[in-house]
Amino acid sequence: MSLPRIAIDAMGGDEGVRVMIDGAAQARRDHDRFKFLLVGDQARIEKALDAHPNMRGASEILHCEDVVAGDEKPSRAIRRAKTTSMGLAVNAVKLGDAGAAVSAGNTGALMAMSKLALRTMPGIDRPALAALLPTLEDHDVIMLDLGANTECDARNLVQFAIMGAAYSRIVAGSAEPRVRLLNIGTEEQKGTDALQEAAQQLREATNLEMRFDGFVEADKINRGNVDVVVTDGFSGNIALKAIEGTARFVTDLLKTAFKSSLRSKIGYSISRPATELLRHHLDPNNHNGAVFLGLNGVVVKSHGSATAGGVANAVAVTARLLENNITERITTDLAELNKTAAASEARIGEGQ
Amino acid sequence: MSLPRIAIDAMGGDEGVRVMIDGAAQARRDHDRFKFLLVGDQARIEKALDAHPNMRGASEILHCEDVVAGDEKPSRAIRRAKTTSMGLAVNAVKLGDAGAAVSAGNTGALMAMSKLALRTMPGIDRPALAALLPTLEDHDVIMLDLGANTECDARNLVQFAIMGAAYSRIVAGSAEPRVRLLNIGTEEQKGTDALQEAAQQLREATNLEMRFDGFVEADKINRGNVDVVVTDGFSGNIALKAIEGTARFVTDLLKTAFKSSLRSKIGYSISRPATELLRHHLDPNNHNGAVFLGLNGVVVKSHGSATAGGVANAVAVTARLLENNITERITTDLAELNKTAAASEARIGEGQ
Repeated sequence: MSLPRIAIDAMGGDEGVRVMIDGAAQARRDHDRFKFLLVGDQARIEKALDAHPNMRGASEILHCEDVVAGDEKPSRAIRRAKTTSMGLAVNAVKLGDAGAAVSAGNTGALMAMSKLALRTMPGIDRPALAALLPTLEDHDVIMLDLGANTECDARNLVQFAIMGAAYSRIVAGSAEPRVRLLNIGTEEQKGTDALQEAAQQLREATNLEMRFDGFVEADKINRGNVDVVVTDGFSGNIALKAIEGTARFVTDLLKTAFKSSLRSKIGYSISRPATELLRHHLDPNNHNGAVFLGLNGVVVKSHGSATAGGVANAVAVTARLLENNITERITTDLAELNKTAAASEARIGEGQ
Repeated sequence: MSLPRIAIDAMGGDEGVRVMIDGAAQARRDHDRFKFLLVGDQARIEKALDAHPNMRGASEILHCEDVVAGDEKPSRAIRRAKTTSMGLAVNAVKLGDAGAAVSAGNTGALMAMSKLALRTMPGIDRPALAALLPTLEDHDVIMLDLGANTECDARNLVQFAIMGAAYSRIVAGSAEPRVRLLNIGTEEQKGTDALQEAAQQLREATNLEMRFDGFVEADKINRGNVDVVVTDGFSGNIALKAIEGTARFVTDLLKTAFKSSLRSKIGYSISRPATELLRHHLDPNNHNGAVFLGLNGVVVKSHGSATAGGVANAVAVTARLLENNITERITTDLAELNKTAAASEARIGEGQ
């Protein structure tokens, strides 16, 4: 099977062209069947490519000098889609020149452009942003939506569950990911009507490739016993940022504490391997690559300040989604869901 | 001024009568003008009181043997309000026998009972649950609502801001607490209609005893530059639990890392004072006491597994709210808010 190319927005992000090219090259070591469309300033891209013989013959450069600013409004970015590196990378997916686009630029602009250019895939009403978060175990948990949709109904949440489960089967390798809806309690009657109804539909749809385990509270997201956490974009964004902020808060407190006395400083330098282990486990670079799911084409957001290793992780996720045909997997589960719904309606029609 | 008594539900919580009585006695050392109504099993309370001569002459016991179970549905707890220690403590506030009730029992039951027995104070549509959270600085941040109201409109949010600011002025001592609305971005157009409208009203109401600073994202709650974070109960509960869960997650990871090698174990034991400092800073006992604001009377929830020191903090918060007349402060700001609204309507009437 010939794989589609991956378009890289080489100009987005805070770290510049080199980090994006280094990251792509690093990811290609494990995914060497992939070719790249590198979008951005030709001279700078060529210079960065000098260090990576494995990218020779595997890359085409699409020259452009214009870049979407970090604080640019999505509406303005959309109007400049034909001249910016981000716009051209997404457009390459639209034209079939690439199967996926990776960008470290402005998230809002990337979501708006992707939605407009690629449109949602059949059966999906709204796309969702999904990210990987560390857990106590040695696998990540996927959470979605993280801000693409401020308000969601039950139908949206069920579709997010299907998309998140397909993503989890690919990156975590579990055949039946454990899926839960984020709620403020685990009792059946807790939460909004949308959550109640989504839970009902997911409980009934037993033929999906997932195991629906009910609700999860925000303090249990990272215990390692759930693979996919489904939520509306408002709550998801709150939960994600509360988690990120608290991880930083605790490590900041720890740093201050370690500096508080000579004895602590000495203890710190001795136990360095332990704190390095912690730092590594929490390092956003190791969980980099937020995936915009539900479009006709794959779009992945790399963190704006990711290192080359972080970009490599985002590109590797992209490669795995293409290798394992994420869109087809979502389509299959959507068809199964419709069968359940049809059967349920038929039962109601028969007066059962 | 004669102070109202504090009713203590001595039977709620996981730790039993002794912890509640020890906590009350400890709090009374700093607040020795207070008297207590201790609700629960007379023999056990008397036994616990033996250790506390400072409670002699300051306590009356209201005997009862029945207790609300930890998993009891609020609807059932309400029906048993006349026989349970929690119900009788809240009822004492209703009857004017006490000015406040403190319980470490079932939160849902306590909220439901309090709401029914005490009713919301004039000008408040819905009560809210407020908690103290640690920050990077040496003061706590107050967040509300934390789950009393799943869905909230702008009017509710503005009232929460007023109640939270009054609470902050009392416990944090800042004359003009910095108030922000929890949102998924800080730009003016971000978030739901309710958030937009609440922000608009708070910006206009410049005569309130607070400084409204716009929106705050969930990763900035604990940076120390905001005193009161206002949110609907759903998002607030998600944020609170994500914060609690992540703090536990990071400290769990740290423990595992410290145990990962002999070298790390040695480093850990040397830097023990530093990790103790961290533990102390994050210890929920030091931030104990969630306040149910907006009722005709003060109700405080102590954590179910709080130590005597934790209970003492919850009782001390209760004492300070009574000493500083929280209800009156809220009433004053509500009146100011109404003046602003009336002036704004008058301007509209004049065609401005």
